[in-house]
Amino acid sequence: MSALLLALDYAAVLIFALTGALVASRAQLDIVGFAFLACLTAVGGGTLRDVLLDRNPVFWIAAPSFLAVAAAAAILVFFTAHLLESRYRALLWLDACALAVAVTAGAGVALSLNQPAPIVIIMGMVTGCMGGLMRDVVVGEVPLVLKQGELYVTAAFAGALAAVTAERIGETPWITLSACAAVTLILRAGSLRFGWRLPVYRSRPPRT
Amino acid sequence: MSALLLALDYAAVLIFALTGALVASRAQLDIVGFAFLACLTAVGGGTLRDVLLDRNPVFWIAAPSFLAVAAAAAILVFFTAHLLESRYRALLWLDACALAVAVTAGAGVALSLNQPAPIVIIMGMVTGCMGGLMRDVVVGEVPLVLKQGELYVTAAFAGALAAVTAERIGETPWITLSACAAVTLILRAGSLRFGWRLPVYRSRPPRT
Amino acid sequence: MSALLLALDYAAVLIFALTGALVASRAQLDIVGFAFLACLTAVGGGTLRDVLLDRNPVFWIAAPSFLAVAAAAAILVFFTAHLLESRYRALLWLDACALAVAVTAGAGVALSLNQPAPIVIIMGMVTGCMGGLMRDVVVGEVPLVLKQGELYVTAAFAGALAAVTAERIGETPWITLSACAAVTLILRAGSLRFGWRLPVYRSRPPRT
Repeated sequence: MSALLLALDYAAVLIFALTGALVASRAQLDIVGFAFLACLTAVGGGTLRDVLLDRNPVFWIAAPSFLAVAAAAAILVFFTAHLLESRYRALLWLDACALAVAVTAGAGVALSLNQPAPIVIIMGMVTGCMGGLMRDVVVGEVPLVLKQGELYVTAAFAGALAAVTAERIGETPWITLSACAAVTLILRAGSLRFGWRLPVYRSRPPRT
Repeated sequence: MSALLLALDYAAVLIFALTGALVASRAQLDIVGFAFLACLTAVGGGTLRDVLLDRNPVFWIAAPSFLAVAAAAAILVFFTAHLLESRYRALLWLDACALAVAVTAGAGVALSLNQPAPIVIIMGMVTGCMGGLMRDVVVGEVPLVLKQGELYVTAAFAGALAAVTAERIGETPWITLSACAAVTLILRAGSLRFGWRLPVYRSRPPRT
Repeated sequence: MSALLLALDYAAVLIFALTGALVASRAQLDIVGFAFLACLTAVGGGTLRDVLLDRNPVFWIAAPSFLAVAAAAAILVFFTAHLLESRYRALLWLDACALAVAVTAGAGVALSLNQPAPIVIIMGMVTGCMGGLMRDVVVGEVPLVLKQGELYVTAAFAGALAAVTAERIGETPWITLSACAAVTLILRAGSLRFGWRLPVYRSRPPRT
């Protein structure tokens, strides 16, 4: 299972780095700013997971090649982002993929450490949501994670719950982790494509 | 003392979760967004305290029921916030209570680990102020902690100082922690109710 | 080398604390707010470095006098900032000095722990950039670190790279660390004074 978890961490880092670089392009940063934001987004969630679980060393300190992957993704975006028809749409969809992969990576690590179910779920959510949250807070945008009514934290929660359930009923790691990624991605993609949403709090005018 | 500290952590989590959910209601999030912001606010300060003090595991990983409390508080607020006359006033007063309880929890933990006085004071302030700071930064509001002239960090500082002083002169844990909570709450409440404040820096026009 | 590293940490704390207090003066905070922001800025980057490297205890918990230095700097600024002709220019230049010293402190600590080159570089950048980033995010300003095209993260990167290179070719710690500080400061100062910059991403109108 540990090779699989490593591959998931690499995939999450790569895709989140692409989203960080796209946000950098929208904020018109220079190439080092691209790399900085790509690295922050790519390793932010997993770093928080490792610090909370007291995993030592943190995954990208154990294997600095994670940072090389993120920096390479940033450089790629710096020179090719102008080819995209809509950088914002690319950002949304890459972010959805990154969310699905990172939730799976986070839940998988917690499962491999035999953490109880609530901690597995939280670690999936932390790994999936926190990198993007840091990215958005640092550039001063409203975090995607808090977009009203969209399934985002909800998708992460449901995916991690699927992982816990699959593991509980004795599925193999492959199926457990695939279920997690699939549930997360389907919910998030459905929200982006078909407008699936939860009712928002709106019983009174806001900000009073 | 450790049962008392655990109770304080639960109380701080509950009240801070209520404030996080109220902020979520003002930002018109959905129910999962309520739970997310409630959990972040509820455990943010204590988590930072535990990471800084290298306490393992972090308090809510040792007892995931903390998160259940925070999520329950979020659900409660989601369905009842419309009954409040002013959500903003409720937020301010709950936040004052949460501050007093959390400063006490933070200082108490540091005292129980025999940390030196400056670290006890800082841990009280970190535990009290950082959860609310994260809540406000994430939703993009000016942090309550930085409201000009209001006693907030000051109240936390004075409360933690009271705890250190009481412990130094040999008071029991009950009295030490009660003094901390009382001093923090009185100063913060006095600032909200009677406008007690410190002079702000205003020798020249701002932002030049 | 460890006395030298301790001195660098003290210098970085002092200068970053001055920048935090200057930002507090621009946000018209009270004296406790000055101290809070000064401490956050002063120890933010180094704390993250220590948590990531699992150094225990965190540097300012091992020696709380760091916080006394930061608080003293805050008080000094509270009573003297009105004497400055331009607080913003003072902020920029102090921040440049703090960056140079803190990058050096971060890279030096990682070198002393025999970390591989990429981690040394990252720790230099984290220690140098993250305290100022936290300062700016908390008060809701655009982070200096993300100013379009200015050499900031770039200066930190180049300085840390210089440290790694000097160490690799067998220079003494003094020369290694001096090279790091000099490269960082020259690039950042050149960017402030002469407008040295990297090209920014601007192939299409922003925010589309």
